[in-house]
Amino acid sequence: MEKIPSVNNLTIAAKRIQPYIHRTPVLTSETINRMFGSSFFFKCENFQKVGAFKSRGAVNAVFSLNDKSVINGVATHSSGNHAQALARAGRLRRVPVYIVMPRNAPRVKINAVRNYGGIITFCEPTLKAREETLKRVIKETGSVEIHPYDNYRIIEGQATCTMELIEDAGAPDMILCPVGGGGLLSGTALAAAYFSKNTEVIVCEPAMADDAYRSFRAGRLIPGVNPETIADGLLTSLGERNFPIIRKFVKDIVTVSEESIIEAMRLVYERMKIIIEPSSAVPVAALIENKLDVKGKTVGIILSGGNVDLKNLPF
Amino acid sequence: MEKIPSVNNLTIAAKRIQPYIHRTPVLTSETINRMFGSSFFFKCENFQKVGAFKSRGAVNAVFSLNDKSVINGVATHSSGNHAQALARAGRLRRVPVYIVMPRNAPRVKINAVRNYGGIITFCEPTLKAREETLKRVIKETGSVEIHPYDNYRIIEGQATCTMELIEDAGAPDMILCPVGGGGLLSGTALAAAYFSKNTEVIVCEPAMADDAYRSFRAGRLIPGVNPETIADGLLTSLGERNFPIIRKFVKDIVTVSEESIIEAMRLVYERMKIIIEPSSAVPVAALIENKLDVKGKTVGIILSGGNVDLKNLPF
Repeated sequence: MEKIPSVNNLTIAAKRIQPYIHRTPVLTSETINRMFGSSFFFKCENFQKVGAFKSRGAVNAVFSLNDKSVINGVATHSSGNHAQALARAGRLRRVPVYIVMPRNAPRVKINAVRNYGGIITFCEPTLKAREETLKRVIKETGSVEIHPYDNYRIIEGQATCTMELIEDAGAPDMILCPVGGGGLLSGTALAAAYFSKNTEVIVCEPAMADDAYRSFRAGRLIPGVNPETIADGLLTSLGERNFPIIRKFVKDIVTVSEESIIEAMRLVYERMKIIIEPSSAVPVAALIENKLDVKGKTVGIILSGGNVDLKNLPF
Repeated sequence: MEKIPSVNNLTIAAKRIQPYIHRTPVLTSETINRMFGSSFFFKCENFQKVGAFKSRGAVNAVFSLNDKSVINGVATHSSGNHAQALARAGRLRRVPVYIVMPRNAPRVKINAVRNYGGIITFCEPTLKAREETLKRVIKETGSVEIHPYDNYRIIEGQATCTMELIEDAGAPDMILCPVGGGGLLSGTALAAAYFSKNTEVIVCEPAMADDAYRSFRAGRLIPGVNPETIADGLLTSLGERNFPIIRKFVKDIVTVSEESIIEAMRLVYERMKIIIEPSSAVPVAALIENKLDVKGKTVGIILSGGNVDLKNLPF
């Protein structure tokens, strides 16, 4: 039976992925510190390979497979950052990568996957079609499925982000993290629990896609129904392997409005001069809504990615 | 008589400003390295206080004045980054700062200066009106003029940017630097000459505002006539103190098109996930136009600032 990743699993993952990922910088902003009376440490995964933390988990998952298991390649269904990250990881391991994508995926995403050598199979834009097509591709190719978040190797990889944050900026009083499927969040929660046990992990989620909030409060998984948020990386519902870790190690969850997410995005662009995707702005939105007791505290914030359409900024 | 700043002047300036400025990071980009076959080191002055290298010179100029000289404050005419930087430096020194601005300056610039406590006098939007108004303000207040670039203390301050680059990333084969009035460039050229004498300083200038190019070729100062470029930080013509330093220590000047500047801006936004102003994109534009022999070399690039209207990106 699979077990929740241990301290040792996380340490191995950090070593395993180190040659293939970017140790992203931790930035600070005196303006934002002053605004909220705290010391913030922004872990800049927008500067990560393929522009998002997803590179960490994908590399860990692909390189944790032994030569025999991986020989027929890996597969997933995704139209987002995970697809690119997996395509890149497979290319580094020199194995084929099969990506199932909805027919209506944006051209820029399709091209990005192809640039990394990913082999795309298109399907109808429904979850059912995606899952069935993936099943067929796996059967035909003998490849191994790498789920974007409901996978312990993925979770371990995403955990390395917080391990680096703690190493480079010290153990903060709190870490703020967004949540979609929960891959980044469960990794963050595990890393904090193992390497900085006094650090509280607080989750920030769009109110318009609040399945994690409702699941956390109810104590059972409640999938989202038609979530709609500008934070397009957070539309997915919590995974089965992710939820128990989150229940156990996360201190609290708060939700934020779409308006605050946009305001937070602009604040980071204007004051920090860095480009983040809307999902990354969700924890900053929670500060703007004054929902967190951060005053006088040291606070780590995971900026999860920077893949955004610069022609369609929401402000 | 005033003399060109010495090694010692630069070292003193670096120490003087250190408590008041941000030691900006040096970023790298494997994508951009691969595109041009070089190792680039981007000195990120877009992350500097007030969003531009101007903070360095302004702090050095204000703090190099003795208590008696500075007591009635400092003054300048500027509607750009220098105005904000000087207002901030004066506030840090606790002296009044008088800024002469054209009546039609953008509201956002006016507010930024006021936020730093700057005292604004408006005038007609002509150089003559600006100079005359400044003269009057200085006479009435007893304040000291701090010219935005034609001032040795300013030049020393701007030089610290390249001193840090060399300290943090090693001495590169080349440094690429944009030019407007020449404050940053003359500082860069001096710092390279003193602290890394094998480093070639190459200037990159918009073809639509090419007074430095023409002056450099002619061997005498030729002021620009109606320059018009998207790189609005580079509209000014070379200063009298700046030109001799540039003639002596700069290796070459190249010019670039407006189209390349925009393409370069987009490249940096998309690949590096950082926000730069058009002026900062000018050296990258020279790479895109294949005007520089950078292959196999280590190349420092000064990203001069990040103050841009995000609502009006040119791409």
